[in-house]
Amino acid sequence: MSIQRALPAVRRVRLTNVSFPQPSRIRPQPALPRPAAHPQQRCQHSNAQKAEASTSAGGADHSPQEAPDRPQSKIKYTSDSYPNLKRDSRFKEVSADDVKFFQGLLGEGSAVLDGVTQNTGEEDFEAYNSDWMKKYRGQCRLVLKPATTEHVSKISKYCNENMLAVVPQGGNTGLVGGSVPVFDEIVLSLSKMNNVRSFDDVSGVLVADAGVILQQADEHVANHNHIFPLDLGAKGSCQIGANVATNAGGLRLLRYGSMHGNILGLEVVLPDGTIVDDLGTLRKNNTGYDLKQLFIGAEGTIGIITAISILCPQRSNAVNVAYFGLESYQKVQDAFKEAKKQLGEILSAFELMDHQSQDLYRQASGAKLPLEGDHPFYCLIETSGSNTEHDKEKLDSFLEHVLGEEIVSDGVVSENETQLQSLWACREGISEAGQHWGGVYKYDLSIPLTKLYELVEECRELFQNNGLMHAEDEKFPVKEVVGYGHMGDSNLHLNVAVRRYDKEVEKVLEPWVYEWVAKRKGSISAEHGLGIAKKDYIGYSRSETMVRLMKDIKKLYDPNGIMNPYKYI
Amino acid sequence: MSIQRALPAVRRVRLTNVSFPQPSRIRPQPALPRPAAHPQQRCQHSNAQKAEASTSAGGADHSPQEAPDRPQSKIKYTSDSYPNLKRDSRFKEVSADDVKFFQGLLGEGSAVLDGVTQNTGEEDFEAYNSDWMKKYRGQCRLVLKPATTEHVSKISKYCNENMLAVVPQGGNTGLVGGSVPVFDEIVLSLSKMNNVRSFDDVSGVLVADAGVILQQADEHVANHNHIFPLDLGAKGSCQIGANVATNAGGLRLLRYGSMHGNILGLEVVLPDGTIVDDLGTLRKNNTGYDLKQLFIGAEGTIGIITAISILCPQRSNAVNVAYFGLESYQKVQDAFKEAKKQLGEILSAFELMDHQSQDLYRQASGAKLPLEGDHPFYCLIETSGSNTEHDKEKLDSFLEHVLGEEIVSDGVVSENETQLQSLWACREGISEAGQHWGGVYKYDLSIPLTKLYELVEECRELFQNNGLMHAEDEKFPVKEVVGYGHMGDSNLHLNVAVRRYDKEVEKVLEPWVYEWVAKRKGSISAEHGLGIAKKDYIGYSRSETMVRLMKDIKKLYDPNGIMNPYKYI
Repeated sequence: MSIQRALPAVRRVRLTNVSFPQPSRIRPQPALPRPAAHPQQRCQHSNAQKAEASTSAGGADHSPQEAPDRPQSKIKYTSDSYPNLKRDSRFKEVSADDVKFFQGLLGEGSAVLDGVTQNTGEEDFEAYNSDWMKKYRGQCRLVLKPATTEHVSKISKYCNENMLAVVPQGGNTGLVGGSVPVFDEIVLSLSKMNNVRSFDDVSGVLVADAGVILQQADEHVANHNHIFPLDLGAKGSCQIGANVATNAGGLRLLRYGSMHGNILGLEVVLPDGTIVDDLGTLRKNNTGYDLKQLFIGAEGTIGIITAISILCPQRSNAVNVAYFGLESYQKVQDAFKEAKKQLGEILSAFELMDHQSQDLYRQASGAKLPLEGDHPFYCLIETSGSNTEHDKEKLDSFLEHVLGEEIVSDGVVSENETQLQSLWACREGISEAGQHWGGVYKYDLSIPLTKLYELVEECRELFQNNGLMHAEDEKFPVKEVVGYGHMGDSNLHLNVAVRRYDKEVEKVLEPWVYEWVAKRKGSISAEHGLGIAKKDYIGYSRSETMVRLMKDIKKLYDPNGIMNPYKYI
Repeated sequence: MSIQRALPAVRRVRLTNVSFPQPSRIRPQPALPRPAAHPQQRCQHSNAQKAEASTSAGGADHSPQEAPDRPQSKIKYTSDSYPNLKRDSRFKEVSADDVKFFQGLLGEGSAVLDGVTQNTGEEDFEAYNSDWMKKYRGQCRLVLKPATTEHVSKISKYCNENMLAVVPQGGNTGLVGGSVPVFDEIVLSLSKMNNVRSFDDVSGVLVADAGVILQQADEHVANHNHIFPLDLGAKGSCQIGANVATNAGGLRLLRYGSMHGNILGLEVVLPDGTIVDDLGTLRKNNTGYDLKQLFIGAEGTIGIITAISILCPQRSNAVNVAYFGLESYQKVQDAFKEAKKQLGEILSAFELMDHQSQDLYRQASGAKLPLEGDHPFYCLIETSGSNTEHDKEKLDSFLEHVLGEEIVSDGVVSENETQLQSLWACREGISEAGQHWGGVYKYDLSIPLTKLYELVEECRELFQNNGLMHAEDEKFPVKEVVGYGHMGDSNLHLNVAVRRYDKEVEKVLEPWVYEWVAKRKGSISAEHGLGIAKKDYIGYSRSETMVRLMKDIKKLYDPNGIMNPYKYI
């Protein structure tokens, strides 16, 4: 629907007059076929999905990107990239006896991938040893695929008693190296625990094994007109247990809230084999400490989530998207306030994109942007509700208001699914566009909303002042600094598009970015977690007291430190 | 608006033809004037507010009610009601030196109420020693009212080092005796810490001291068109820090979710004086264990919450209420499913009331019910949204559907605020109505939705079979068994209205009710917590493993056990 109908006096473009290229990334993303035998095959991570994961999950990691199609043999071992990390000598190396124990427990079939007593090639361990960004690479020689919670319990108990280090692994789609080993830790893959245990279509409560793929969980509840309250680009590969373990945020957080609110119960195996049987389906249960909360976002460092119970909201019938241009970041904030006020219960996304990000996307993709003329800022608003006409009326009335009040300079509204996807592509195409000229430094940050964009401006100024940046001249390493992200969640993606990775650029960025964020009481990891990548930077977002208290918790649950070592805190 | 307009073929009543009496309890409840000097005065708990608190907060405790206007001198000491509870001899008695230390810290003014070195009368301690239901009574002789977090820290440290037991106290409106001392514990009142620290009307994040009254917090954000995501009957007295400490549920949970999702940060003082500085305002911060979650619902047993940071949603402009009759509990479930589907994002309450509860309300209040004729079940639906017309259309269309499909037999929709309040009174008047014939045994339970009403039926059958119940004959102790509650939260209130408290009745009820709930994996305390009242019953809702793990947490944070002793687990 064009805004023209509602507001003839304001200059605008009809979306139908704009010839969009087919968006390279669309939303919702179609399911990728999942090979039955090798659920973790790297081929799952097609280029399209990769970029999707990095945008949709909210940006990417903070370090220089390596070429994503680099063969594994060329991936540096994590132990080489992080020479200060030494293997903990308290951990035993896996022996033939250990393998025998695990085979006795799980059988000698596909549940044990054995490179200790067998001559199994390194390529068979590839999917378990390295992450899909091909930035981290471990040296695991034993993968276990338990089929039951009891299996997981017995494995943990054995490992704890024998000082064998363990890395719990879901879909291995993380961005901070949290799900792959560093040295020879045993990988405990949840992939065989993939049954939906129950769904109650009155209460909307889903109970499912940790290894169920997110997309399958969503499809299951979609059949009952419900929606899984998490959505992210890697949905075709990532597993719901690991989503909980990493407290994944994703695209639906603005509307449906975080895991801490939606998770009703968890089944967790502690390092000593104890099964935490807290898999309730009740919305209210005030009987004691809510221990399950500790495992949400613990990245598998104090226990292994084996099943989840989660509240799934009703699925919305109607989805609308608007895209508009604004004069200043102040007006972006004003528009956000108005959107909250006028769209209230149907607002499901409010995304920010600066001019530079849209220009980069235009240059890299060759796409024509939805609006004619340039605007310093752009926003994308999505509404989801139960009644198409009502939602369109609300959106029209909102747009009429923000255009009339000159909060928004110009805008378009999608009239069909193709246009909706084209508008989303302008937001979701940014991440890949940044890499077009050679590489990109990426930061995924939470910053109080009023100050959120100042970081981008100051960063740009820094590069301009020290002569490292030029839009056209290839002699300068930095091409552009762009800012975009989930405005509704105060989640900024700062991307520095470069022609080549350069020590001078890195010196400017770090620790400056972290210090800047720390001063504003922001977070250096909004949703990706700590893993290996940000383990050493937690002090920028947490006080010494908090870190000390966190270490107490780690010690309480994992006194031997066998669970996902070398990471987190 | 009457359903007549939409559906002339279906028999119905026009609400405007029904002459409601002025409801004795209305919602939203008007603020009660709060005496400036004595924020904890018992006069705050007028009868109206008492009944409101017990219904709105979701039922009341499980034991026989004592007359709420009983003077304190007649309230039994908790130590007499629970003779098995003995004072922990490790705790030191408060000495003159201790009082001197606290006076030195807080000043000799109103911040220290001293019955140790002064001849302060027992009546001055009344508001701190006993709960508003007048069921629990402690023997505290020292009340401290710190004004700053540093005060709280120094008090805690001193108490921990000197083995002085402490009871953190908010508005003291709880229903399980969690906020009053049992023996001579020091009461640490948060009432002087009552400043709003900040509110950001773009992000909707409120940061405020723990001692801010809930209603004041809501009024503060209402000025900025936002809503505090918790509402309950005791809002004029209860404090937001204690609301978090008890994980209060209340009336808005269906729509806005639980504290675990809405709390963005907490400032907490641990027993050893450590200040947990986790008062962030970010919606996303994946940097380490989310420790603040542990203090939500911990009932002050591992630390004292001194400030909270909470996400406040946009306030809804339009509120509509419908009330209807249904033939069976199966149809109630069908109606709930349809309401979730068709009303989706605007559904803000779905309340269940059985025929018996409405009949009791009618008899006790003399009110005329909204619908002519009898129906086995009644439901109240509330919608809250940003557009009145849209919401009414949705509600009409929903009602047309459920009437047409014969899910619902009959119904009315409020046309104005007075009618809206009259409809709510039919739900909120039940709690008080139950006490009309002499007394009431009350249970606040979470039960999986499909089985929720079976408990009421079985309980009624039990009393019918053993000859303890009769609707008219005064010889029988039980008048009626009624079931009602927050259907949307799976939260049932089972009330047994009696003519007199009777050991035979109690023998039938306990432990039968708890066992019944335990077998269905329900919760014996949906939202009221454990306190003293349910400490011994946690085993019905939590496994031994869970209780053991909870005790580990208690030990980790409060090794001396000084914080709110004799309660919780």
